[in-house]
Amino acid sequence: MKEGGQGMARKRCEIICVGTELLLGDITNTNAQYIARGLSDLGLDLYVQTVVGDNENRLEQAVRAAMSRADILLFTGGLGPTSDDITKEVVARCLGTELVLDEQALDDIRAFYALTKRPMPISNEKQALMPRDGQLLKNPQGTAPGCLIFGKQGHIAALMPGPPREMRPMLDNLVLPFLRQFSDGGLYSRAVRVVSLGESRMAEMLGDLIDQGTNPTLAPYAKDGEAMVRVTARARNREEADQLTGPVIEEIKQRLGRHAYGVDVDNLESVIAELLLAQGFTASFLEAGSGGLAAQRLQRTEQAHQVCGVCLSAPTIQALANLLHMGPASCEDPAACAQLAGAAAKRLNTGCAVVIEVRERAIACAVSLDGQTRQYAQALPERGAEYYRVQAVQSALDMLRLMLLDRAEAQVK
Amino acid sequence: MKEGGQGMARKRCEIICVGTELLLGDITNTNAQYIARGLSDLGLDLYVQTVVGDNENRLEQAVRAAMSRADILLFTGGLGPTSDDITKEVVARCLGTELVLDEQALDDIRAFYALTKRPMPISNEKQALMPRDGQLLKNPQGTAPGCLIFGKQGHIAALMPGPPREMRPMLDNLVLPFLRQFSDGGLYSRAVRVVSLGESRMAEMLGDLIDQGTNPTLAPYAKDGEAMVRVTARARNREEADQLTGPVIEEIKQRLGRHAYGVDVDNLESVIAELLLAQGFTASFLEAGSGGLAAQRLQRTEQAHQVCGVCLSAPTIQALANLLHMGPASCEDPAACAQLAGAAAKRLNTGCAVVIEVRERAIACAVSLDGQTRQYAQALPERGAEYYRVQAVQSALDMLRLMLLDRAEAQVK
Repeated sequence: MKEGGQGMARKRCEIICVGTELLLGDITNTNAQYIARGLSDLGLDLYVQTVVGDNENRLEQAVRAAMSRADILLFTGGLGPTSDDITKEVVARCLGTELVLDEQALDDIRAFYALTKRPMPISNEKQALMPRDGQLLKNPQGTAPGCLIFGKQGHIAALMPGPPREMRPMLDNLVLPFLRQFSDGGLYSRAVRVVSLGESRMAEMLGDLIDQGTNPTLAPYAKDGEAMVRVTARARNREEADQLTGPVIEEIKQRLGRHAYGVDVDNLESVIAELLLAQGFTASFLEAGSGGLAAQRLQRTEQAHQVCGVCLSAPTIQALANLLHMGPASCEDPAACAQLAGAAAKRLNTGCAVVIEVRERAIACAVSLDGQTRQYAQALPERGAEYYRVQAVQSALDMLRLMLLDRAEAQVK
Repeated sequence: MKEGGQGMARKRCEIICVGTELLLGDITNTNAQYIARGLSDLGLDLYVQTVVGDNENRLEQAVRAAMSRADILLFTGGLGPTSDDITKEVVARCLGTELVLDEQALDDIRAFYALTKRPMPISNEKQALMPRDGQLLKNPQGTAPGCLIFGKQGHIAALMPGPPREMRPMLDNLVLPFLRQFSDGGLYSRAVRVVSLGESRMAEMLGDLIDQGTNPTLAPYAKDGEAMVRVTARARNREEADQLTGPVIEEIKQRLGRHAYGVDVDNLESVIAELLLAQGFTASFLEAGSGGLAAQRLQRTEQAHQVCGVCLSAPTIQALANLLHMGPASCEDPAACAQLAGAAAKRLNTGCAVVIEVRERAIACAVSLDGQTRQYAQALPERGAEYYRVQAVQSALDMLRLMLLDRAEAQVK
């Protein structure tokens, strides 16, 4: 199975994603990437990823092949209630154990259906079958529990649901913490989040750091309307890793200035929400053509209840202005756009109003903060509507962020 | 290798993606999905996808395993000029042929570097090595040509570059047209979209159709807050396929009733947008706690400009009511919620207003359409905020859809 004694060699992992819709390309396989990164962070070796369909023979073939190469097998998919869902049955068989009914799991599933006042289809009972040599993994996000299975030859299998929303918390909260015991150290990453700077220009500014980095390493990435630098150190624990990554991160922040908007933060809006809260503002967004995306992003932050005011969205700026009983309004002229933001702030009785307009191949936005206004407009190349929305919202949010930072600095002086 | 004579049985495909950054999750594997869909459209059977790193032994192991299961192997990655790039060498060896220098290919690579006025690294020459038993595949998007390799045992390998921008045109323009000769027709799928019915209950209602379906086949899927039945027929062309799928789809629609909201439509909101347009309504959404998700969905439809009114979102119902100068407002009591929708419709001077509230583990919504109101409330199990948002918006949108359908039917009578 593997070279050296079982306790000596590093454990090898493999990922097997089960699902015909995945195999045939109906949906993107984000699970494999997410799990791979989790294993990498733990410092566990991963050598193969496999995707198979909902077919018993081929799944069994894949499992047995993986068992001959690796110690730890991670599965997604095939835990549902239909006859296509066969992962537990096959893996249990290959690992040499059997499935038994877990009464507590069955009760949990029944309770879910009782709460939603719908009858439980009999087929759901199979979701409560658990491996005799194993352990149930709770799934607060769905009805199908996952499980660990301990094989007769020393293999460990972790079976997780297919839907990412259910798989990720199970992986992060249950599976990876369990697997940590098999790691002799890890990779610890930190992410410097960057806005209003293109990835290649950013990579240029950090060129020598990227080229020379061995531990830690630097990896530049582009994200939607943003960029990022992943700084990764190999160390025995987080504290050691931070000592390695700390100085590099400081250097990156120094070089990128305000373009670096946070380290290990969720997103731009979470940073803005903190600034709004600290300065005591609630923000209202008026969006024409961005589909309410800016409001949605801010309303998903932890502090949403404290920093979100009423937000409006409509296909046109004029429709928004009409609701607020304001006269003719436009964002085509920068001064008019800024004026609109100021008037909206007054009308909504708020210290912070943001106006966003998406037109054909052009975006405009304006922010009114504590009586000061700023505006921005940009023509864009031929892309898709989604691209314009993202650019418009990112520009507006970043402008708001900089105004909040400027205001904070001015108050200190 | 496979059952039956070589000419008789259908060719089986496998995909092997090569690249350590892919394996370790640094980048998303969109190539596998893209190729899988291309093969599916051609009606070629795909049974396994594999991802391995830039390691010669493990790649060889994966290739030989694939050769034992399949006839056509598609590869991405590992065609570059570095010592990590080994795909051609390994696959050629496994298939029983050797690499020789292709002078034309070498000239092309030299020309590219001359054009960009950069010296060609010597290592780039390996990109001009081509299989003796094979065929070069031109790569207008990059410097590494791909190739077909014809193996001694009848296998065919197609080697393509890793970067999607280079791989996709090579696949679409060269590889798939070449592979078409091995297909005896295509797979043609249609999707019946289903709402307000759980996947397992839906599968129960269609049980016999799912179990007995051979051509076409039925596959039930769950999606966020929805479900779907994919009906797939193998046929020589779309017209023949439709003759096979048509009757089954009618049977499905008959059994699922109004839960089946469309066939091959983009989403629920696109169906609603058509109904709003046909009946001459613009819809305004007032959302508390759903982050403006309902408005965003409707504003992304084709007909957005004609069917979207002004939409509001805020953390609480009361904040929304205050903006509209309405008194105390609530959605906790169903009657009050319905009343709020009616009052909002009047205030916004629109024929259609939808109120959505997401609270802790409960959702409520109400629709006012042409003076009629309907409301809905539901307690939910402990999940995440995202789950509540999706459920709330789906419930509201479906209620609106049903009211529009009822109104259309009533007008016919």
